[in-house]
Amino acid sequence: MIRFILTNARLLTCAEGAQGYTLQDADLAVEGDRIVAIGDIPADFATAERRDLGGRIVTPALIDCHTHIVHGGDRAREFEMRLEGASYEDIARAGGGILSSVTATRAAGEDELVASALPRLDALLAEGVGTIEVKSGYGLTIADEMKMLRAARRLARERPVRIVTSWLAAHAVPPEYKGRADAYLDEVAIPGLRAAHEAGLVDAVDGFCEGIAFLAPQIARLFDVAAELGLPVKLHAEQLSHQGGSRLVAARGGLSADHVEYATAEDASVMAGAGTVATLLPGAFYTLRETQMPPIGAFRAAGTRMALATDCNPGTAPLTSILLTMNMGATLFRLTPEECLRGVTAHAARALGLTDCGILAPGMRADLAVWNIAHPAELSYRIGFNPLHERYFGGVKC
Amino acid sequence: MIRFILTNARLLTCAEGAQGYTLQDADLAVEGDRIVAIGDIPADFATAERRDLGGRIVTPALIDCHTHIVHGGDRAREFEMRLEGASYEDIARAGGGILSSVTATRAAGEDELVASALPRLDALLAEGVGTIEVKSGYGLTIADEMKMLRAARRLARERPVRIVTSWLAAHAVPPEYKGRADAYLDEVAIPGLRAAHEAGLVDAVDGFCEGIAFLAPQIARLFDVAAELGLPVKLHAEQLSHQGGSRLVAARGGLSADHVEYATAEDASVMAGAGTVATLLPGAFYTLRETQMPPIGAFRAAGTRMALATDCNPGTAPLTSILLTMNMGATLFRLTPEECLRGVTAHAARALGLTDCGILAPGMRADLAVWNIAHPAELSYRIGFNPLHERYFGGVKC
Ligand SMILES: [Zn+2]
Ligand SMILES: [Zn+2]
Repeated sequence: MIRFILTNARLLTCAEGAQGYTLQDADLAVEGDRIVAIGDIPADFATAERRDLGGRIVTPALIDCHTHIVHGGDRAREFEMRLEGASYEDIARAGGGILSSVTATRAAGEDELVASALPRLDALLAEGVGTIEVKSGYGLTIADEMKMLRAARRLARERPVRIVTSWLAAHAVPPEYKGRADAYLDEVAIPGLRAAHEAGLVDAVDGFCEGIAFLAPQIARLFDVAAELGLPVKLHAEQLSHQGGSRLVAARGGLSADHVEYATAEDASVMAGAGTVATLLPGAFYTLRETQMPPIGAFRAAGTRMALATDCNPGTAPLTSILLTMNMGATLFRLTPEECLRGVTAHAARALGLTDCGILAPGMRADLAVWNIAHPAELSYRIGFNPLHERYFGGVKC
Repeated sequence: MIRFILTNARLLTCAEGAQGYTLQDADLAVEGDRIVAIGDIPADFATAERRDLGGRIVTPALIDCHTHIVHGGDRAREFEMRLEGASYEDIARAGGGILSSVTATRAAGEDELVASALPRLDALLAEGVGTIEVKSGYGLTIADEMKMLRAARRLARERPVRIVTSWLAAHAVPPEYKGRADAYLDEVAIPGLRAAHEAGLVDAVDGFCEGIAFLAPQIARLFDVAAELGLPVKLHAEQLSHQGGSRLVAARGGLSADHVEYATAEDASVMAGAGTVATLLPGAFYTLRETQMPPIGAFRAAGTRMALATDCNPGTAPLTSILLTMNMGATLFRLTPEECLRGVTAHAARALGLTDCGILAPGMRADLAVWNIAHPAELSYRIGFNPLHERYFGGVKC
């Protein structure tokens, strides 16, 4: 079994409490895919390889806890048309909008979905990411949703990364079910969830709770099936309007409510009480030029944990940089660099229900990022700059 | 002399007129550091090496026409303090603000300035940049301003890139001249300009025309000396308020007025008439969360050319991505992807007074960027993603 000690390192453990953002000068011992000791190195490591990090800062490998990184096509031309003055009708008439991604995703084979996702994935890994959540949601048939999650699972065989999947068939009502959202749930989203779960493709169940997608009582029916299958839930909630999604997901003990620009202080309290993470997605806020800020002050006051994620998707956030997401969290949402760092480590792990990553501690996976920076705040301060020195995934330098 | 032909290429020439944004399937012949032919390849190239680009898109190498990439220190901790709720006085008391960059730049040796700029420069080169403008402006003594420009010149010996320098001693009034801006001009900015020009360090003269820096009549005195020395001028103008800087620089036939959020339609007309480029800096707009948009419609109507640049600096834009700058130009300023591309190629070349780069045409430098994209709009659409396949500088693949 591989054994080594990282020496001359400055650790940012990201553990709860002030210590997690305090640089700790300590050696870190790795055995196999795990951290086995910090500071107090066991005597039997006396002969283990020592790797001098030259005083560099080490954090847990970063975690992108909300992505749509598997999808067909792109929407660059639609982006251009809008800037050239095209109306939403013009774009819809030209086959644009979310349905263009659905069409492209349905048309793509599984291999093609994997191949097109890999460059996006590689961009994230190059910034020290070790775990990525990937959603379905552009197939909107049972077969195409399952194809997306099979492609997502394959990413973890193509690259040294952990992939966590979410079943997001309740992302949009496809044209063939127009005006019949409940029929879509009964005929596609729910039976598809059972089939995908049976096939081992689903780690959590997600939905889009919004006037233009599914209402809270419809999401509740989907969540009933998730509970029956023993799957955790999460939800795109309160992005464009207040629909009660954040409280619904909290009431089910859900992992996270995501976007949450329109959440209230009361929602924040309910989420904090349930341990539901507020996953903030500043890339979508930026692209859509939103002005409604998520209630950061209320989350802080209530003790709601906040995560940050790219939301990488072809329409509202063609964003493949977790570091830029941290800068956007600070610049646009006024999070502190400490909050940004916890948002892509410890709190992102919680948002995925993972208990073996996101902090540096004995027993945790040796998923590490080593940085060429002098101060932790640099990770949020710089814009479009990647100071990663090296990345470890499961104890292996990648 | 090196001779080769790029084949199976789709060229975006960026030349004036609609053709410049139309993909042209044509071979491109290079001899030495120049493009010698497009499409119609001379007979004597029959035996030249042919390099198949696999149908990839080729643009001129990108040009970042406004940076402060040479500077001492960073301001990450100040960024953090502000997000933690510190007031501007708190930060000033802790030694923050522009003066902290002046202190760090004065303390740094020339080698240190070069070493700290190289990672930032490398980030830009990795995105296909071939030419970068670099300003002084954090030394604010004759010796320290000249040290900055010597460091800037050295970057072009350390890396395959063209560096164009600007004398920006009129960036801020240093503490030792507090309340005596005219004395600073007479004792530092102007005699320093003469000395730096004599030493071959100055390609253009710049200033910061703002209530908190130098007023238009003071900048005019500096520009008189520039004219005497035969140096072109440019100006940080109308960023925080309307001071008349854009018309001043246009009246001197200047290269560019930069920032220009508060420029008027009349300013736009005067600039267009003088051929003065409007250099837009969306990274500073983003970081400062400005709401005053530059008058894009007026620039379009007047025919004022618009460039885009990173403004890479430690305070208001710690930004080292020209591609992200393009996305910000589109997302924040509503430029079309075509305008964004011209803004970092043909129009950026004009903003630097360069006539041998920024477009693909026979006789121009063979500074090229080859991209893994299917449509030109992708360069502005993606956020935090780098699709560069390879970069040529002066006919050499880097
Ligand atoms: Zn999403
Ligand atoms: Zn500037």
